Amino acid sequence: MNISAPRGTKDILPQEIKKWHYVEDVMRSVCADFAYQEIRTPIFEHTELFQRGIGDTTDVVEKEMYTFCDRGGRSITLRPENTAAVVRSYIENKLYADGGVSKLFYLGPMFRYDRPQAGRLRQFNQFGVEVLATSEPLIDAEIISLAYHILQKLGLKDLKLLINSVGCPKCRPQHKEKLKEFFKPKLQQLCTDCQSRYDRNPLRILDCKVEKCKTLSVGAPSLAECLCEECRAHFTAVKEYLEEISIPYELDDGLVRGLDYYTKTAFEIQYSPLGAQSAVCGGGRYDGLVQEIGGPQTAGIGFAMGIERILLALEKQNLLPETSEQVDVFIVVPDQENRKLGFKIAYELRKKGISTVIDSIPRSMKAQLKQANKLQAEKVLLLGAEELSRQKVVLKDMLKSEQQEIAIENIALILAKTGVQKNG
Amino acid sequence: MNISAPRGTKDILPQEIKKWHYVEDVMRSVCADFAYQEIRTPIFEHTELFQRGIGDTTDVVEKEMYTFCDRGGRSITLRPENTAAVVRSYIENKLYADGGVSKLFYLGPMFRYDRPQAGRLRQFNQFGVEVLATSEPLIDAEIISLAYHILQKLGLKDLKLLINSVGCPKCRPQHKEKLKEFFKPKLQQLCTDCQSRYDRNPLRILDCKVEKCKTLSVGAPSLAECLCEECRAHFTAVKEYLEEISIPYELDDGLVRGLDYYTKTAFEIQYSPLGAQSAVCGGGRYDGLVQEIGGPQTAGIGFAMGIERILLALEKQNLLPETSEQVDVFIVVPDQENRKLGFKIAYELRKKGISTVIDSIPRSMKAQLKQANKLQAEKVLLLGAEELSRQKVVLKDMLKSEQQEIAIENIALILAKTGVQKNG
Repeated sequence: MNISAPRGTKDILPQEIKKWHYVEDVMRSVCADFAYQEIRTPIFEHTELFQRGIGDTTDVVEKEMYTFCDRGGRSITLRPENTAAVVRSYIENKLYADGGVSKLFYLGPMFRYDRPQAGRLRQFNQFGVEVLATSEPLIDAEIISLAYHILQKLGLKDLKLLINSVGCPKCRPQHKEKLKEFFKPKLQQLCTDCQSRYDRNPLRILDCKVEKCKTLSVGAPSLAECLCEECRAHFTAVKEYLEEISIPYELDDGLVRGLDYYTKTAFEIQYSPLGAQSAVCGGGRYDGLVQEIGGPQTAGIGFAMGIERILLALEKQNLLPETSEQVDVFIVVPDQENRKLGFKIAYELRKKGISTVIDSIPRSMKAQLKQANKLQAEKVLLLGAEELSRQKVVLKDMLKSEQQEIAIENIALILAKTGVQKNG
Repeated sequence: MNISAPRGTKDILPQEIKKWHYVEDVMRSVCADFAYQEIRTPIFEHTELFQRGIGDTTDVVEKEMYTFCDRGGRSITLRPENTAAVVRSYIENKLYADGGVSKLFYLGPMFRYDRPQAGRLRQFNQFGVEVLATSEPLIDAEIISLAYHILQKLGLKDLKLLINSVGCPKCRPQHKEKLKEFFKPKLQQLCTDCQSRYDRNPLRILDCKVEKCKTLSVGAPSLAECLCEECRAHFTAVKEYLEEISIPYELDDGLVRGLDYYTKTAFEIQYSPLGAQSAVCGGGRYDGLVQEIGGPQTAGIGFAMGIERILLALEKQNLLPETSEQVDVFIVVPDQENRKLGFKIAYELRKKGISTVIDSIPRSMKAQLKQANKLQAEKVLLLGAEELSRQKVVLKDMLKSEQQEIAIENIALILAKTGVQKNG
């Protein structure tokens, strides 16, 4: 038997974990600076939530969900994205009860049964932000600046921010009619998906990935011409806030997003060196979603970033910091008899926050020293038989290639003083 | 429509997230002190892995797995525990190739379709450790000391460590025969599960939760009497290492663990104030597992801790540290016009690692100050119209109830100097 990880999933191994920690730490610390708080929702939800919350005409819901029945006969789906789940949690836990604004972020795995390709897995990781209970344009600009600052802090330059307004239920019907007029003569040339979209939601034709549909969409009437007074004022204010903090943007009326619940602001941040998959962040406002899922009328806005894609970008640009193993002390023992003393010293040091290794394979002192080198240990404690007979050990500084004899009882004290201690 | 989280799952809300961060940080930092590295495996695996790796006669595999077919017809299971998956990853990624020992830890959600009860969810979180490629008793004591130190560092006192040896394929058959002799006259009185265990694996009768079977098991022949020379020497050495670092233990020959692949050392750490659910950590050696799953003959050992249960213990004993919101600065603006300036100042401060909030609901300055109080902001920046006309703002220290006028251009400098900056 030879069992492998399921297709489209990937282990994150110890030699790769540091880059994940690095990116996640930047995201967490920027969220702290913006006073956004973490929320964790379950890995799976009732299928109905995503059908309602994402829209059952979308590719995600139609083709890509991991849906199954649990042992109690409930239809359950591994979360394909996290906005619907965060909103479900907001409603279920009555986070609106204190009358305030909820500024939330999440970090975790999502699942889509997609064709696996570079930077696109079936289990992939997203960082995202959701703000509930404020329709203020300031918040649109705030979450964009949060995303932008994370990407900049990670070292990504030449970011391109695209923004658009997709209107609201007041102004969209007008645009819909104009679009239908525009596509009517081209209907037979559209892909079958788009033909069915024509009646249900012609806006989504603009989002189709089929080349032919893209060509046929050129020149389609833009929503910008049809925005109602409120949406127009909101969009203007968002742009003014972005200008105030000098974040450059481009208008892109092709930016309609793949999901049905978006209103007003839609945005995407692209990092062009990634080529075809240049979008590293996408989001927008969804003032209709909370009510759709069964909550009180509540404004909302959010974005998501694919962490794998960001790591791809950082690797490509050589922007990942050098990291090394964090071993402070390696304990070398002469024989089985003295391993127990070595083990005791190791435990004392570890309890003091000094990262310590004692070899778990009995081997020669030479082989142990080689292992200490391999782990890039800063110091080595040599428990030689002769020194031990005098209650001493040899402390070797691997960087300076110096060594000294120290008394066993002073080991922890001396190591703490030399500043090897990395964890408080 | 009113959609709730699936039964047996639970949202972790912003007001609870800090205690999770606290416990996870302790676990991560102790792992760093022991030089153990994180590994992340997928949320689901091929079902076969758990059937082979956990044992298909166990309750977990027979009754509690979230198993389903994906869109490609593969049988997939949400991981009910993580040892089998870490071992699968070890084999698939050839972590044994460098000839060294792999010291790994993980942190994440697991899934069992169990009856939900206090501290026992269908999606629950585990921290765990796995060490591969060393059969040395030192490592058995090392991972026990790692678990023990985490629990002590969290403040849990009066921990009870139970240890046992469950032998190996050499000595277990002898014990099995003795057990069968013992249970033969009682066979009809055992539960139906145990009756089928009698032939397949009578050792697991000792692990049955049915009260009657527990009673019938009293006086069963212990494995300790049947251990082979190697297992006996190993167990003795483990005990000596534990004594060396003064971790007290009790022998418990009823500790047989629920899973089939365990060999030699089995252990459990109990925290008695939790009552019926006092086990906070369980683990043991599994020298047969790597080969069972298709890898080379490789020794292994590990443990898992339920994080929900540990949080329950910490809450019960009032051991969770006081934590407060981390807002450094709250910006109060007089009107819409000056909100843009406030927004700009906020962005500058956030970029400098100063946690800053600007209200996203337009409301009176009084209401904004109330909000600043609610968020426990350390400082408030008041952008009064009169002061702004002189290029100044008011900086209010909420703790000391002092205030001063500062020039707009100096805001970031002054705030950085007063040490509000929490994130580097």
